[in-house]
Amino acid sequence: MKFAKMHGLGNDYVYVDCFTERISDPAGLARLFSDRHKGIGSDGLILIGPSGKADFRMQIYNADGSVAEMCGNGIRCLGKYVYERGMTDKTELTVETLAGIRRLRLTVEDKTVTEVEADMGIPILKADKIPIVSEHSMVVDEPIVVDGVMLRMTGVSLGNPHAVIYVQSVRTADIGWLGPRLEHHGRFPRRINVEFTEIIDRHTISVRVWERGAKETLSCGTGACAAVVASVLNDLTERRVRVKLTGGDLTVEWREADNTVYMTGPAAAVFDGVINIPSAG
Amino acid sequence: MKFAKMHGLGNDYVYVDCFTERISDPAGLARLFSDRHKGIGSDGLILIGPSGKADFRMQIYNADGSVAEMCGNGIRCLGKYVYERGMTDKTELTVETLAGIRRLRLTVEDKTVTEVEADMGIPILKADKIPIVSEHSMVVDEPIVVDGVMLRMTGVSLGNPHAVIYVQSVRTADIGWLGPRLEHHGRFPRRINVEFTEIIDRHTISVRVWERGAKETLSCGTGACAAVVASVLNDLTERRVRVKLTGGDLTVEWREADNTVYMTGPAAAVFDGVINIPSAG
Repeated sequence: MKFAKMHGLGNDYVYVDCFTERISDPAGLARLFSDRHKGIGSDGLILIGPSGKADFRMQIYNADGSVAEMCGNGIRCLGKYVYERGMTDKTELTVETLAGIRRLRLTVEDKTVTEVEADMGIPILKADKIPIVSEHSMVVDEPIVVDGVMLRMTGVSLGNPHAVIYVQSVRTADIGWLGPRLEHHGRFPRRINVEFTEIIDRHTISVRVWERGAKETLSCGTGACAAVVASVLNDLTERRVRVKLTGGDLTVEWREADNTVYMTGPAAAVFDGVINIPSAG
Repeated sequence: MKFAKMHGLGNDYVYVDCFTERISDPAGLARLFSDRHKGIGSDGLILIGPSGKADFRMQIYNADGSVAEMCGNGIRCLGKYVYERGMTDKTELTVETLAGIRRLRLTVEDKTVTEVEADMGIPILKADKIPIVSEHSMVVDEPIVVDGVMLRMTGVSLGNPHAVIYVQSVRTADIGWLGPRLEHHGRFPRRINVEFTEIIDRHTISVRVWERGAKETLSCGTGACAAVVASVLNDLTERRVRVKLTGGDLTVEWREADNTVYMTGPAAAVFDGVINIPSAG
């Protein structure tokens, strides 16, 4: 089976073109492929296939075989893949995902896709939809007490739940202590992703992400988006912001015209491979 | 550049055939390739090339770009590589390494190499050559005190220094506490690899390895060999022993006839790949 290895800010996936390859057990393959010592090594498997409603369909399987609805870093790489391999000559694409149809806009220089803008959807701000337990309908700059320490949080969902916490400095914040205590706090019935956010200026923020079930990660697309939405709600930034993550930079815009969040960032092709699939599973 | 990804008990390397590929900066490539998110992902890079003194030459670069003299898991995969790709039809091979010429014996079934025996050299037992600070010329079942706890150790070098410590149960031994205290103990001037070893019977031992500079690892070929040499010295096992490591099983024989240690184990080919090397660096 042919595959490609790609990453967006270090968030790396194995890509398989299902126009030409047949896959019978994607969850099992995702587990097999993702093993970083005995497999290909990845955060998961992304299948690119035909769609009845969009230009392409993206299916994401995490390293543990579970299904992911959407991945901002993953969908940018899909845009690069289909354009550079001549599967489309459009630079504005639609992609069917489990989170709905997403639009991509490719920046192309000399036949190479250098950057991709992905539509990350409309942020959900209602407390009970995020979900966060609160007396208010929205959670903006609201106090939360963690082991006797009082913090202030803003809640946003982009399909997955986020709490944005402002800190003086992301370098000195004790994320290893705060992260797990927030993730499992009683006010988050489905647990929470936490963005520790430092305002640099009205166009730039620095973010470290504690991902639900994954501890601190190098980069989280929806986390970057949540941090910008929260910063606009708190009037700390403009609507278009450079987000500095541990794994690299993204540009996020919460566009007023359509209330939608757009994320722009790099996509990298690392190598192409061929692997023999064991016949029994 | 073409490459192959292979592993022995999860100890994984990128293999490049230098009969057909030209490499100018192997240390830089090893660092680039080994990155598990933005590169190919590996414990290092192994170059296979021609030798004036043996059938092939093996050069090993660790993930940090440093040079390794020998790797038992790595050399087994080299044997599989050269035979299955038709670079030789011999099943007994010699390989030039920085630790000297090593011999390989391949088990072939239906054109597939299922197992490889590698000559791991003659064990060094003199205390000052391992090196271990001791009043005796050899270190066999000698007491060592670690933060007030008395343990007994046996010292062996296979090019790198090892202390073998017998425990009642490898499952319950607190390796995270003992490992670093032994590694940096004053009696080991060049630090030490530690094998926590449980005797199952005279033909079987179970070993967990604390590797110098790498903490606990899944499998360490020289560690398995050291544990068997120590077990023979202490008359706890026969000379041919099954070694159960966290990553899988190896068979180690300390042969009386030539005083040499032979290790037999699996080698796995995972996938073949093609990667573009950035022109500057």
